[in-house]
Amino acid sequence: MTPMTEPRASSDRPRHFLTLNGLSRPYIVSLLDRAVALREACRDGALPPLLAGRTVMNLFFEASTRTRTSFELASRRLGAYVVNFDIASSSTSKGESLEDTEATLEAMDADVFVVRHKDNGTPARFAAHARRAVVINAGDGNHAHPTQGLLDLMTIRDHKSDIEGLNVTICGDVRHSRVARSDIDGLTALGAAEIRLCGPKALLPSAEEFPGCRILESFDEALDASDVVIMLRLQKERMQGHPGLGEAEYFAEYGLTAARLRNARADAIVMHPGPMNRGIEIAGDVADGPRSVILEQVANGIFVRMAVLAELLRV
Amino acid sequence: MTPMTEPRASSDRPRHFLTLNGLSRPYIVSLLDRAVALREACRDGALPPLLAGRTVMNLFFEASTRTRTSFELASRRLGAYVVNFDIASSSTSKGESLEDTEATLEAMDADVFVVRHKDNGTPARFAAHARRAVVINAGDGNHAHPTQGLLDLMTIRDHKSDIEGLNVTICGDVRHSRVARSDIDGLTALGAAEIRLCGPKALLPSAEEFPGCRILESFDEALDASDVVIMLRLQKERMQGHPGLGEAEYFAEYGLTAARLRNARADAIVMHPGPMNRGIEIAGDVADGPRSVILEQVANGIFVRMAVLAELLRV
Amino acid sequence: MTPMTEPRASSDRPRHFLTLNGLSRPYIVSLLDRAVALREACRDGALPPLLAGRTVMNLFFEASTRTRTSFELASRRLGAYVVNFDIASSSTSKGESLEDTEATLEAMDADVFVVRHKDNGTPARFAAHARRAVVINAGDGNHAHPTQGLLDLMTIRDHKSDIEGLNVTICGDVRHSRVARSDIDGLTALGAAEIRLCGPKALLPSAEEFPGCRILESFDEALDASDVVIMLRLQKERMQGHPGLGEAEYFAEYGLTAARLRNARADAIVMHPGPMNRGIEIAGDVADGPRSVILEQVANGIFVRMAVLAELLRV
Repeated sequence: MTPMTEPRASSDRPRHFLTLNGLSRPYIVSLLDRAVALREACRDGALPPLLAGRTVMNLFFEASTRTRTSFELASRRLGAYVVNFDIASSSTSKGESLEDTEATLEAMDADVFVVRHKDNGTPARFAAHARRAVVINAGDGNHAHPTQGLLDLMTIRDHKSDIEGLNVTICGDVRHSRVARSDIDGLTALGAAEIRLCGPKALLPSAEEFPGCRILESFDEALDASDVVIMLRLQKERMQGHPGLGEAEYFAEYGLTAARLRNARADAIVMHPGPMNRGIEIAGDVADGPRSVILEQVANGIFVRMAVLAELLRV
Repeated sequence: MTPMTEPRASSDRPRHFLTLNGLSRPYIVSLLDRAVALREACRDGALPPLLAGRTVMNLFFEASTRTRTSFELASRRLGAYVVNFDIASSSTSKGESLEDTEATLEAMDADVFVVRHKDNGTPARFAAHARRAVVINAGDGNHAHPTQGLLDLMTIRDHKSDIEGLNVTICGDVRHSRVARSDIDGLTALGAAEIRLCGPKALLPSAEEFPGCRILESFDEALDASDVVIMLRLQKERMQGHPGLGEAEYFAEYGLTAARLRNARADAIVMHPGPMNRGIEIAGDVADGPRSVILEQVANGIFVRMAVLAELLRV
Repeated sequence: MTPMTEPRASSDRPRHFLTLNGLSRPYIVSLLDRAVALREACRDGALPPLLAGRTVMNLFFEASTRTRTSFELASRRLGAYVVNFDIASSSTSKGESLEDTEATLEAMDADVFVVRHKDNGTPARFAAHARRAVVINAGDGNHAHPTQGLLDLMTIRDHKSDIEGLNVTICGDVRHSRVARSDIDGLTALGAAEIRLCGPKALLPSAEEFPGCRILESFDEALDASDVVIMLRLQKERMQGHPGLGEAEYFAEYGLTAARLRNARADAIVMHPGPMNRGIEIAGDVADGPRSVILEQVANGIFVRMAVLAELLRV
């Protein structure tokens, strides 16, 4: 056996997919490459039924149709059975512990749990108790949303030959954003030159949390020579305790307009995880404009989720 | 190429299916013929997987299990992936515009949107913004319910050799009924002799809207020599502002009883789009009687929906 | 034709599956044998698509994700189309009678109705009105839950070579439990030696209802020389009218602890239909301990449901 044909070390190939943090660059690149290959296969009408006979259970304790539908279609187009677990009418709502619910579903031969929860760490809690099934984090609290991070990386790679050397600006409620955290993890692993985190002071994270990033209050400064601009959704209720930061003020300071976008590189791309608040964090003409890759992000989401499902199931 | 083998002009083959109004007689007949052929194939256990690999998204902004289930089964029996979009937990409920929700779902490779909405024109709005997907109206406000119109035509054709020359009575809340409007459109296109609209004055449409129909308050008169009797569901809340039109009074004046049905032709058929209010617009023994074709309507609904799906996807 | 190859008498092979009461021992054994065979086939990756082209409709008027998911997976893994009928948005909620809803769904070619309802007899009502479809009771009131009874029998058979001769203790709210009733029916048909029903007086059934069972208030006495211990879920709201029977008191008197379990046979198995209230009717270490077969019950549930579906559809 030559080193080249050796399997990757298991530490480098996690059993569950909970965060991009700590994943190696080759592993992330292999997932992105696989997503691209699956996209090709899909366009050729030659998607292999990699998950035939497998059962994927979507456990969305927090409502989300966008992400759930993306996972559902990724799973079904690869041939899996998908169960959308209805949390409201579930045993969990009858006082059963999460661990017992999980053990019960696993006894029904669930192969994958896709878990979204408002509390940080719930997917990890599922992973800790899984016997045979694998767990994918579909977003937990403000901790991580690793498949979103991956689809953002894929979309950036589609437009920029290499992530190494790019300046990336993430603007908005970075402090509470799991999307931002997973983007930062992924961009760091792939060698982005500079990651700038921007927003009103109340919504910026601490410098200690992200020592490798530049933290700025000025959006224009943050945009300067930027290759990629990632706008975050503003949770309107976050602004209630901050007088002077109504929707109009927010848009004036941190809304991405065509004029402001001129501060970035001429070929900068504009991203948003959705759903968008048009006229609050992003102007409609920018969202629909030639630099926006927002719908490509959505399309790529299906393929990174296929890649993660196939990789975790070792198929 | 002879004219007979030429494809129909595109103006005659709409991209979306929003209304029967304006569709040509040959086009409607071709859909009905296809529905009949699919029914045959189904009974022979030889339904072709025409929609294999396609994704149909049901967007029911207005609750309806009957119509949604019919579309779901039509789609799945032809091999499609079906996503029942949960409106309550969707991004739309988080303030996302309908257009952004649609664009997002289309980026996930939705091929068909089946849309029901309480407001007239919402399916047309989806159609106007669709890039590649096709839109089927599953009922909007009091505007149209074209697949219901089609299944009613199919059921009439099953019993009467030709729609041309038939007298058809539509009784009930015609004013607010999208079913009535689509029935009138379809019956007119196929050359029904006389369409009679009947009901209490407050629930009758204006004569200007339906110049080709006879509008009558007397149900007995409307039934005279009728070949087809279509009873509409009474929305009980509609009657609240009309003293003297309680449920018992309504049944006495406009309920279809066996005695009253004798005013129609001896071979008249009785139809209802469901769900029925027994004892309000229709007597139970008539609903269950030998002239009732109500369950045949339901069965045909699956096949006209299959025909429309296949036709719009050009398969 | 020899007697051995004759089909079973139709009285012995019910059209619907509403209760275990009255089913013959050979019939129940044939279902259990089939469930075991399907489990083998599944483990060999050779599950036959017995329900291909069939439509199973889950009508859960009472919320239950556990049982619904089990039926859904059983149906889909055998190749059926599954429709989870959303009762909340259904025509039933618009005042349509259950009979009309059923007739409508049957007109859409439903082959099986899986019915759960809080009222005793609703599945039987569906069965009485079915034209062609078959009905499976997924739990009605305190009447019956026959597939739960069957999966309990299957799990017992997995551990004890023969049910004949076993002592079985059922502890908890026997009076209101459909699980207990179906277990008693099944165990009686298969010749259990002694069935002991145990619980606080207020939750015990009348001796007239179960003349073949021993009824005891003392849990220790009920456990003596027991081969199988079935713990029932305590509906906490039941205890409100019974001062002196709070959760701590209940656990002290009727909670299954490791110490108390020593009163049973050394090889006794512990069962629970779930969801469990740990620390109320069962101690966590017993639920997770070596004598617990609770997760095996869940796993077997899929296979007995497959067996019942296949048997009722005569495939």
